[in-house]
Amino acid sequence: MSHVLVGGELVVALSGGVGGAKLALGLSRILPAEELLVVANTGDDFEHLGLTICPDIDTLTYALAGLDNPATGWGRRDETWSFMETIATLGGADWFRLGDRDLALHVERTRRLGAGQSLSQITADVCRRLGVGPRVLPMSDDRVRTRVRSESGWIDFQDYFVRQQCRPVVQQLAFTGAADARPQPEVMAALAGGNVRAVVICPSNPFISIEPILAVPGLRAALDNCGAPVVAVSPIVDGRAVKGPTAKMMQELGLPVSSASVAARYGDLLDGYVVDAGDAGGIRAKLHVTSTLMTTLEDREALAREVLGFADRLR
Amino acid sequence: MSHVLVGGELVVALSGGVGGAKLALGLSRILPAEELLVVANTGDDFEHLGLTICPDIDTLTYALAGLDNPATGWGRRDETWSFMETIATLGGADWFRLGDRDLALHVERTRRLGAGQSLSQITADVCRRLGVGPRVLPMSDDRVRTRVRSESGWIDFQDYFVRQQCRPVVQQLAFTGAADARPQPEVMAALAGGNVRAVVICPSNPFISIEPILAVPGLRAALDNCGAPVVAVSPIVDGRAVKGPTAKMMQELGLPVSSASVAARYGDLLDGYVVDAGDAGGIRAKLHVTSTLMTTLEDREALAREVLGFADRLR
Repeated sequence: MSHVLVGGELVVALSGGVGGAKLALGLSRILPAEELLVVANTGDDFEHLGLTICPDIDTLTYALAGLDNPATGWGRRDETWSFMETIATLGGADWFRLGDRDLALHVERTRRLGAGQSLSQITADVCRRLGVGPRVLPMSDDRVRTRVRSESGWIDFQDYFVRQQCRPVVQQLAFTGAADARPQPEVMAALAGGNVRAVVICPSNPFISIEPILAVPGLRAALDNCGAPVVAVSPIVDGRAVKGPTAKMMQELGLPVSSASVAARYGDLLDGYVVDAGDAGGIRAKLHVTSTLMTTLEDREALAREVLGFADRLR
Repeated sequence: MSHVLVGGELVVALSGGVGGAKLALGLSRILPAEELLVVANTGDDFEHLGLTICPDIDTLTYALAGLDNPATGWGRRDETWSFMETIATLGGADWFRLGDRDLALHVERTRRLGAGQSLSQITADVCRRLGVGPRVLPMSDDRVRTRVRSESGWIDFQDYFVRQQCRPVVQQLAFTGAADARPQPEVMAALAGGNVRAVVICPSNPFISIEPILAVPGLRAALDNCGAPVVAVSPIVDGRAVKGPTAKMMQELGLPVSSASVAARYGDLLDGYVVDAGDAGGIRAKLHVTSTLMTTLEDREALAREVLGFADRLR
């Protein structure tokens, strides 16, 4: 699948899980499809029940297709659970909840990966079939796996995140395979194309959603050198993470739970930073203060507009 | 899983699909669990969507567990179809209908096979978990695959059977891998144990259900030499097959559609043959004529009693 851009500019968004998918959806609703490219974290992909599962790609895809489950924040809406009920009776692993409809994507993706298709190809085809207009691409077609070290040693990310429900105290994170991973070529071509309007770092967990993307050799430099402003949206609102273990991780890693801590992680990469009122202290990047909480669809669109407007003013 | 028999005798039943599972269920209801061993055909096993699917083992297991779907003759009762609906929207193959509950067994079995467990181990564990008392064992833990030759060449059995709904005219059958397959060791040990009461060849399609079992080197001889009478139940009633392509295949292979044709396939292996009234002509084995149609649960039990009583008289 190739997109030929004639004249139009491109917004490149980096996204992890639910928060990222919310802003990506907002961006998708205010931009023509061909002007948005979303780069998804694959560090929390994992192999489970013999299937390759890509939670962040799927959260993005379902959100952009309008198939996401607003009640859970993961999986699909109108889901059924017969598979999960049954696999428990067979002694299979049931700690990672896979709905019957969601499962179809994992089975079909695993089959196609086994047949030699790349994750990018599969993701593009799934997006096309589900009616997703913007490009969604993995940060790499090579395998990168986030690992978490706690006092009981190194464990896989989903073991930490889902099976142990983020209970272990995080001492260190590693992105296994990242050093040898090749950045997704279409992403690199887009960044080198000279027509990037803005790079948007979505309000995802910096440690487990964005840093795996930045750890792929060449990607951070390509973002830095693409000629467009790099603008992040802080995932911290009122000194707390909107969702997930971001705040708990920051505490465990000895960092203040603040938007400034997140900005410090991104360092010189940032040209601008969008923060919620009350979280604006101690940040070196240019700031745009606005409400960053995305509850409704209108919130998502409004924040997307604010972020792009701010980025345009930074050019 | 091992069964230690103290004194009791053993009925060994060979079974393929639905007809076989019906009689196996009848046998399971009139025998103590430890006195029944059902040997399942694996020739129609296949790999689909990256999963290893074992239709005959599963039909047997579900029937013996009371989980079979009486409306379809395959799959599970109380089934849902979200997976199948969704995989079609993703461009995945939907010609082989996999219910959400049924799918759990295929996913878990495939995972365990990948982890090095044998099909026998997996089947025994699934039976235990689903409350199936009698032993169900595959004819072999090695891969045997039935192939069908028609005028358009050789195709996989499930391609013929399900995808093309038995439309191709069968010219020849082959059991790929059978010549190198090792018979399941527990089956061989049981047959060599000197305490077999009867071998029952269930009313399954001889060409695609029973002959793959007999094609595993050593199995036919072990059945022949186990010291117990071998009694088959004809799958033909009133000159027609009760279910499936048996009659169509017989015509295409140039055989009369009769119980005698089936008996001729089994040849000297048979000591006795149970046929429906009106299908008793031209058969060399000792005959027992009775109603072989199994509609109700009582029919299954009654036929099982008739078959065992007949076998006992042949000893």
